[in-house]
Amino acid sequence: MTDGLIAHGRLAGLDEITGVGADPARGGYSRHVWTSAESELREWFTARATRLGLDVETDRNGNLWAWWGRPGPDAVVTGSHLDSVPGGGAFDGPLGVVSALDAVARLQATGFQPSRPVAVVVFAEEEGSRFGVACLGSRLLSGAITADAARALTDADGVTAAEAAAAAGLAPEHLGRDDEALGRIGLFIELHVEQGRGLIDLGSPTAVASSILAHGRWRLRVSGQGNHAGATGMRERRDPVVAAARAVLAVEEAALATDDARATVGRLRIVPGGTNVIASEVDAWVDARAATDAGTRALVADIESRVQEAVADSGCAVELIEESWSGVVEFDPELAARLAGTLGGVPLLPTGAGHDAGVLSGAVPTAMVFVRNPTGVSHSREEFAETADCIAGVEALEALLRSVL
Amino acid sequence: MTDGLIAHGRLAGLDEITGVGADPARGGYSRHVWTSAESELREWFTARATRLGLDVETDRNGNLWAWWGRPGPDAVVTGSHLDSVPGGGAFDGPLGVVSALDAVARLQATGFQPSRPVAVVVFAEEEGSRFGVACLGSRLLSGAITADAARALTDADGVTAAEAAAAAGLAPEHLGRDDEALGRIGLFIELHVEQGRGLIDLGSPTAVASSILAHGRWRLRVSGQGNHAGATGMRERRDPVVAAARAVLAVEEAALATDDARATVGRLRIVPGGTNVIASEVDAWVDARAATDAGTRALVADIESRVQEAVADSGCAVELIEESWSGVVEFDPELAARLAGTLGGVPLLPTGAGHDAGVLSGAVPTAMVFVRNPTGVSHSREEFAETADCIAGVEALEALLRSVL
Repeated sequence: MTDGLIAHGRLAGLDEITGVGADPARGGYSRHVWTSAESELREWFTARATRLGLDVETDRNGNLWAWWGRPGPDAVVTGSHLDSVPGGGAFDGPLGVVSALDAVARLQATGFQPSRPVAVVVFAEEEGSRFGVACLGSRLLSGAITADAARALTDADGVTAAEAAAAAGLAPEHLGRDDEALGRIGLFIELHVEQGRGLIDLGSPTAVASSILAHGRWRLRVSGQGNHAGATGMRERRDPVVAAARAVLAVEEAALATDDARATVGRLRIVPGGTNVIASEVDAWVDARAATDAGTRALVADIESRVQEAVADSGCAVELIEESWSGVVEFDPELAARLAGTLGGVPLLPTGAGHDAGVLSGAVPTAMVFVRNPTGVSHSREEFAETADCIAGVEALEALLRSVL
Repeated sequence: MTDGLIAHGRLAGLDEITGVGADPARGGYSRHVWTSAESELREWFTARATRLGLDVETDRNGNLWAWWGRPGPDAVVTGSHLDSVPGGGAFDGPLGVVSALDAVARLQATGFQPSRPVAVVVFAEEEGSRFGVACLGSRLLSGAITADAARALTDADGVTAAEAAAAAGLAPEHLGRDDEALGRIGLFIELHVEQGRGLIDLGSPTAVASSILAHGRWRLRVSGQGNHAGATGMRERRDPVVAAARAVLAVEEAALATDDARATVGRLRIVPGGTNVIASEVDAWVDARAATDAGTRALVADIESRVQEAVADSGCAVELIEESWSGVVEFDPELAARLAGTLGGVPLLPTGAGHDAGVLSGAVPTAMVFVRNPTGVSHSREEFAETADCIAGVEALEALLRSVL
């Protein structure tokens, strides 16, 4: 057994960070980029990688790279992210990072000498939970978001991404596409806990990813008239909470009317947000996904039209603002089939969840390995993976690295 | 002119606090009990009252009393509150406090010698914006809430009222009904900006209050299943945001179906609240009001029944929890008529807004004076009162004090 792969029935790496960023109010973990919890995870990663003899560096966009041997072109890179959604689970992100470190440790323990540079990567702000744009670190690295757009993003307290990056020790003026870092990646393999029930039905602990739904985030801004909840008659109101409620139902209806589509409102901001106050403004964030780019665009157009119809008599104005967009990802089918073959013919599996691997797939050869989730639940403290399946994931990642190194 | 009654076209007292607790995110003011902004207002009040030669004391429940002469029984007490709703206006509360100080100053300037003790009072947490129960200071004083119930209230960060009171220098074990303080009040007169359009229609700058709608606050707790927004099919969901949207519409329908009723959802808490996360739980606070106690109880029963029907197919569970209740207030009609007569026959006006005067009306003789609001908007930065009307309010309060002192 290598450097503490298993302890207490889970991967040791997961156990080491089990207390970091625990969220007593929500349950689960809140580990948002450039907060104290996330900084602690970065320190943990650096220490653990250093113990394996890896050299850790932070790139211009806040992504961490732990190099086995000299950094260089045509590297095989594996890893994932350490940040979480608010109240997220223990596996989404960290499983891929811990598995990558453990796979390297297992290779080292057998005296394996890689023929290409190897790196374990931790991408910053994969969930977009602080600044609203998912996969911010990999988008910046690959130029999928401009530095200006990224710097101007704000968190819930009005702190800009530029300010937060500076506070974390980065130079905000150096954020942006990083051809040097990108040019080193010969192959990126991300291992991730599955976020649906695909592997339960397939009866397999692991799979190789085939595709990711197109997806994006839109903000529905509903503007009404703030007033006193007791002194304002029901027919004198322009209440944006009532209008937003109609909008939420219209979002659901649009998704139900489209095959394989998903649309969700999971976050609302009510201004001012008092119990005895008719609100003046509501922001409702819409996460929308479908099987094709055109299908997702059509879904969002349908959402907008249904929402406008739903609020037409409310006296409120509604605006739909795009905050991020990720086109459908079809992972290289030849590469995916070859890796699935290396793993003895594990299934190919599509997903509705976005990943840094999806963002990078347009720039470099990319593949993903999923590990079975026995509940199918993710982005929740109920997210889970059996230790035996986690170990199968590490073994799969080790086998894939051996096959390409 | 007395101690700076008017400056810059507003009452000077309002101008002095114009920067305190300004809320750049919401607009307007957020001045919540025992926060730095509210503490600054208490210091301002103490300094201003002291300049008038009044002796300021804080009672066991955090209410401030500024005594003109020796504290004693059968006192004439006037005042209001300094705390605000989130993003509230400049007048709701402070106008009554500033007008009370100015009325005392005007009496002093004419050499008037009161025949009874006089106090200007500032009640704590009138809006209930921090701990959820409106008029907390006057409820504690009069025993309308038990000390145990009050101590256990929590704010949005999980801080209990007991902890916050202790941090503000109070002894939490001494919170609760205060017969000594209550026993001193011979008459309480609260001046307040009107929160509806009654005085616009009546063409009068002031009125005397006749009644307050019954009202209360209920929390709708909607429990579902947290999950991943992209990986969870639309028909596999138990999404409490969708169920809460149906509930919000059911609340509106119930209020529209009841004469003169008002029901509002102005505050929601979504757990965990991530854009790419199907929520696990939603709290929606319902403010409900109607003309009679029985009518309000019937309205809430109707809300509960319509909500349960609306969410029946959602897979979510809904619970309605009462957080506060205020029965209908009929101010002493003889007293109200006499005071209106003293003011030259100003109108009597009902209101849908709760006040400390309503809470105290069950324990001591109580009356209210309203000052015209030219927009009818309150609990919003758009809340307003013309300076001429504010001065008419001070003059009315001075006349009432002269008539009873």
